[in-house]
Amino acid sequence: MSTPWPFLYPVLILIISFLCQASGIHLPSKNGAHYLGNFKSSSKTFSLVANSRAPKYQYETKYFQQKLDHFSFADLPSFPQRYLINTQHWVGPSRLGPIFLYCGNEGDIEWFASNTGFVWEIAPRFGAMVIFPEHRYYGESMPHGSKEEAYKNATTLSYLTAEQAIADYAVLITELKRNLSAHACPVVLFGGSYGGMLAAWMRLKYPHISIGALASSAPVLQFEDLVPSETFYNIVSNDFRRESISCFNTIKESWDVINKVGQINGGLAQLTKTFHICRELESVDDLSNWLDSAYSYLAMANYPYPTDFLMPLPGSPIKEVCRKVDSLPDGSSVLQRIFEGISVYYNYTGKVDCFNLDDDPHGMSGWDWQACTEMIMPMASNRTTSMFPEFRYDPKSDEEQCLKEFNVKPRPTWITTEFGGHAFKSALKAFGSNIIFSNGLLDPWSGGSVLEDVSETIVALITEKGAHHLDLRAATAEDPDWLLDQRSREIKLISEWLDEYYDEKKATFSM
Amino acid sequence: MSTPWPFLYPVLILIISFLCQASGIHLPSKNGAHYLGNFKSSSKTFSLVANSRAPKYQYETKYFQQKLDHFSFADLPSFPQRYLINTQHWVGPSRLGPIFLYCGNEGDIEWFASNTGFVWEIAPRFGAMVIFPEHRYYGESMPHGSKEEAYKNATTLSYLTAEQAIADYAVLITELKRNLSAHACPVVLFGGSYGGMLAAWMRLKYPHISIGALASSAPVLQFEDLVPSETFYNIVSNDFRRESISCFNTIKESWDVINKVGQINGGLAQLTKTFHICRELESVDDLSNWLDSAYSYLAMANYPYPTDFLMPLPGSPIKEVCRKVDSLPDGSSVLQRIFEGISVYYNYTGKVDCFNLDDDPHGMSGWDWQACTEMIMPMASNRTTSMFPEFRYDPKSDEEQCLKEFNVKPRPTWITTEFGGHAFKSALKAFGSNIIFSNGLLDPWSGGSVLEDVSETIVALITEKGAHHLDLRAATAEDPDWLLDQRSREIKLISEWLDEYYDEKKATFSM
Repeated sequence: MSTPWPFLYPVLILIISFLCQASGIHLPSKNGAHYLGNFKSSSKTFSLVANSRAPKYQYETKYFQQKLDHFSFADLPSFPQRYLINTQHWVGPSRLGPIFLYCGNEGDIEWFASNTGFVWEIAPRFGAMVIFPEHRYYGESMPHGSKEEAYKNATTLSYLTAEQAIADYAVLITELKRNLSAHACPVVLFGGSYGGMLAAWMRLKYPHISIGALASSAPVLQFEDLVPSETFYNIVSNDFRRESISCFNTIKESWDVINKVGQINGGLAQLTKTFHICRELESVDDLSNWLDSAYSYLAMANYPYPTDFLMPLPGSPIKEVCRKVDSLPDGSSVLQRIFEGISVYYNYTGKVDCFNLDDDPHGMSGWDWQACTEMIMPMASNRTTSMFPEFRYDPKSDEEQCLKEFNVKPRPTWITTEFGGHAFKSALKAFGSNIIFSNGLLDPWSGGSVLEDVSETIVALITEKGAHHLDLRAATAEDPDWLLDQRSREIKLISEWLDEYYDEKKATFSM
Repeated sequence: MSTPWPFLYPVLILIISFLCQASGIHLPSKNGAHYLGNFKSSSKTFSLVANSRAPKYQYETKYFQQKLDHFSFADLPSFPQRYLINTQHWVGPSRLGPIFLYCGNEGDIEWFASNTGFVWEIAPRFGAMVIFPEHRYYGESMPHGSKEEAYKNATTLSYLTAEQAIADYAVLITELKRNLSAHACPVVLFGGSYGGMLAAWMRLKYPHISIGALASSAPVLQFEDLVPSETFYNIVSNDFRRESISCFNTIKESWDVINKVGQINGGLAQLTKTFHICRELESVDDLSNWLDSAYSYLAMANYPYPTDFLMPLPGSPIKEVCRKVDSLPDGSSVLQRIFEGISVYYNYTGKVDCFNLDDDPHGMSGWDWQACTEMIMPMASNRTTSMFPEFRYDPKSDEEQCLKEFNVKPRPTWITTEFGGHAFKSALKAFGSNIIFSNGLLDPWSGGSVLEDVSETIVALITEKGAHHLDLRAATAEDPDWLLDQRSREIKLISEWLDEYYDEKKATFSM
C-alpha cells in the first residue's frame, strides 16, 4: 500500500475508537433526555439510541461547584459538576460504610451509570454508597455555562484534562465526606476504559483518598513507546483471524479492492451503491474510515451475549460478521462480502435503508481535544500482522492536524511524565497497592494495559474471551463461567481491601 | 491580653517565619550578583549579606523552558527555569549513576545551594550528579519576563503553586534524563523546610521519578487541624524556657509592658529610643512584630555552632539571648533586658547603630502569595503554654486580608485534599516507601512534621538538639555526635535505596 490513508491517522483512529464509549451527547428534548451515539463516520440513521426510558438504576442527581483550574489561582468561573448518588444501602459513617466511586469518563455520566451494572449490583452487599461523578466538559458538567461556550476554542477548552478531572473527583469526595462526617469511610474507585485509567491514576496520585481501584480495560501503557504502536490493530485483526482465516483475508484484501474501484471512472458511484451509502461518496477514505471504525468497535464489543452498548449486536458479533463474509456463495465479490459483514454492525436490526456517512470533521467533541493535547496514544498498522492497511505513527502530522483543528500543540510526553512511563510498573510495585487491572484479551485496548501482576496487591485479572470492560457490565443469565469467576475475584479483592482497612481502623463492622 | 496584635495574624507570621529562608532576592549589580536577605521588619541596616563571593560549590548554571501551566492547555508564555548542575562526580548512565535533586524552595536557588552542603558533600561517594532547580517565581526563574511583571497582580501570580513547582521538577528531570540517555539512573530527592515538603510530596506524587526523598524539617502536617495550631509558638517558647525560666518569663511579661508604655503620652518615642529604632515607631505592633520575628528565627536557627545562615549568630543563640536577658543587674527594666537579648539576633556583629523597621506591607514577595492561596498553616498562641501573647487562628480575617492584598481567596483545604490530610500517614504507610522525615526538635516547624516512623522505609530521624534542617548544612569541625549520627543514618538509608534499586535492575555497579 503506497497511499497513506488519512482516516488512519492515529489521532483520528483514537477519536473513533474511543468515541464508541464517549458517545453520550446530551440533547435536551421536550419529552425527556435521550442519548444519541454520535460516532465518527456515522449518522443519525444508524446512531445509537441508548435509553429514552427511565435509568436502570436508582440515584439522585446532584451538582457540585468545581473550580475550573485546581492547580492555579487564576480568577476563573466555577462550573457545576453533575454527580449521581445512591445512599440507599449505605451503612453510614458510624459503621464506616464504604463509598464506591466510579470515575466518569468521556461522556454523559448517566450513560456510564446505566452500563456499569457491576458497581450497582455489588454495592448492597458491601453496605456501600454509590457515586458516579461526571467528567468535566461532558454531559451536563459544562464549564462556561454551555457546551457551545465550553467548546468554543482552545482557551475555553484548555481545562479539559485528566489531571483536572481527577482533582475534581478528589475535591468532590473530600467535601462530600466532610459534609457527611464520613471522613473515615473507605473509598473504592471504579472505572472502565479511559475511566479505568482515571481510577488507576487517582489511586496512584491520591492514595490518601481511596483504598483501592478497579481499573477495567484501562490502557495506561498506550503512550509513547511503552507498547508497540501496532498493538491495537493487531488485536482487532487477531479477533477476526481467530474466527476465520478467510474472513481475515477477505478484509485484508478489501482495502486494495476499494482503492482500485475508487480510482476507476464511476468507481465512487459503484462503491456508494454497493455499500448502500445514502449520499454519493466523495472519497474512498470516507468509506474506509467507516469500515475501520466498525471493525474496531466490533473487537471492543465482542461480548459473548447480545448487547446494545455500542450498537444493537448479537453475541460474539465478530463470529457473526465472519459467518456472513464467508457464507456468501462462491463467486461473490470481496465488496459484497464486506458489505454483508459490516451490516452486522451497522444494521443488525435490519431497519436501515441507507447509511449516512456525513459527519462534522470540525466538530469539537471532547475526546478530539483530549487526543490532541495529552492523550497521545501512538497507533500504527503493520501489513504482516494486521488486516488493516499499513501505516506508521506520524507525530509530526498529528501535531499539524491538532494545530489546524484546535490551535493546540500536543504534549506527547506529558502523560508518562505525570503518571509514569517505562517505570510505571516498577514504581507501582515499590510504591503502591490495591489496584486491579482487569482485561479481556479480545479487547484491542487490552494490549496497552497491565496484563501481569505487579505485586501481591496490584494484580492483573485476565479473561481470554472477554472484551472491553465486560466485567463492569450488569450480570446476565448468559454470563459464562470465566466472567463469573473474574467478577467474584474482583469482589474478593475488594472485600480484602476493606477488611484490611477495617482491621487497621480496629472498627467493629458487621453487616 | 485583650488586644489582638495584627502582627500575629497567622498569615503574616508565616510570611515572616518562612522568609528567613526565602530571603534571597536577586539584585542584579554591575559587579556580580549578590544576595540580600529581605526580612520582614528588617532593613538594609541589618539585612543579611550572604555571599558576594564566588559560590561555595562548583556548578554550571543552565536554563530550561518550562510551561507556565502544566495542568491546562491554555496558551501561556513559557519561562526559563534556572537550574544548577554538577556532573563532575557522576559515574554516568552506563553505570546508572544516581541523580541528587534538591527541590528548590521559596528563594534564590544559589542561596539554597550554598546552604545545603550535605548534598554536595555526599554526592562524590555515590558517584552522583547534583541538580538544584530553582522554584518558579523566585530568583531568576521568573514567568512573564521579569519579577516586576510576574508579581504584578493575581493573574500573573496565579501559577505560583507547589503542584506546578513539583511538575516543573518532574518535567525537567525527565527531559534531562532523556537528553543524557539516562532514563534508568535513579533520582534521589532532597529538600529542606518548604523544599522538604516539595521533596516528600514529589516522592508521593511522582513515585516513578524518584526512588526516595530526604525531607528535612518539612512541616507537611501544618495544615488544617492536623496538629494543634499552637504548636509552632509552643516550641519557640519551650526553646527559651529550657534555657532559662526567668528569660522565658521576662519575654512573656514584655508584651504587656510594651503595650502599656505604648499607650502613655510619649510612650512610642520612649520605645523608639529604648530599642534604638532609627525612625519613630508608629505603633507598638511594629515593634512587637519585629521582636516576634527574631524569637521565631532564633528558634529555627538555634544551631549548636556559629552560623550566618539567617543572620550572623553565635552557636546556641537562644542560650546567648537568655544570658543577656538574665545577666543585666537587678533593677534593670524588662525592656532593657529585651533589647539586650534581641540584639544578639539583630546586631551580633555590633555594627548596627539603629534599626530600621520600615518594610513594605504591600510588597509582593512570593511566599506572601503562597501563604494567601494554598499554604494555609493555621497558627495560634496559647497564653498558658506560650511566651507570646494569646491569639486565635482566624481564617475569616486571613481571607479578608488576602482578598485585600492580592484579590485572591485562600483555599485552606486544598493542600490536604491534594497531598493528604488526616490520612496522610496511613496512606503513606500503605502506599509509599523511601522517605526520610528528618527533624530537630528545637525547630518550631518540627511540630508540623512527621516525628515517628510510618513504616519500615518511611522513617523519622529526630535529633533533640537540632534546629531547622541542620542536617542539610555542610559538615563543620564543631558538628556534635548526634548530628554526625543523624547524617550517617541518612547516608545509610540512601545507600539502601540505591542498593535495592540496583539489585532490581540487576546492574553491576561498583564505584
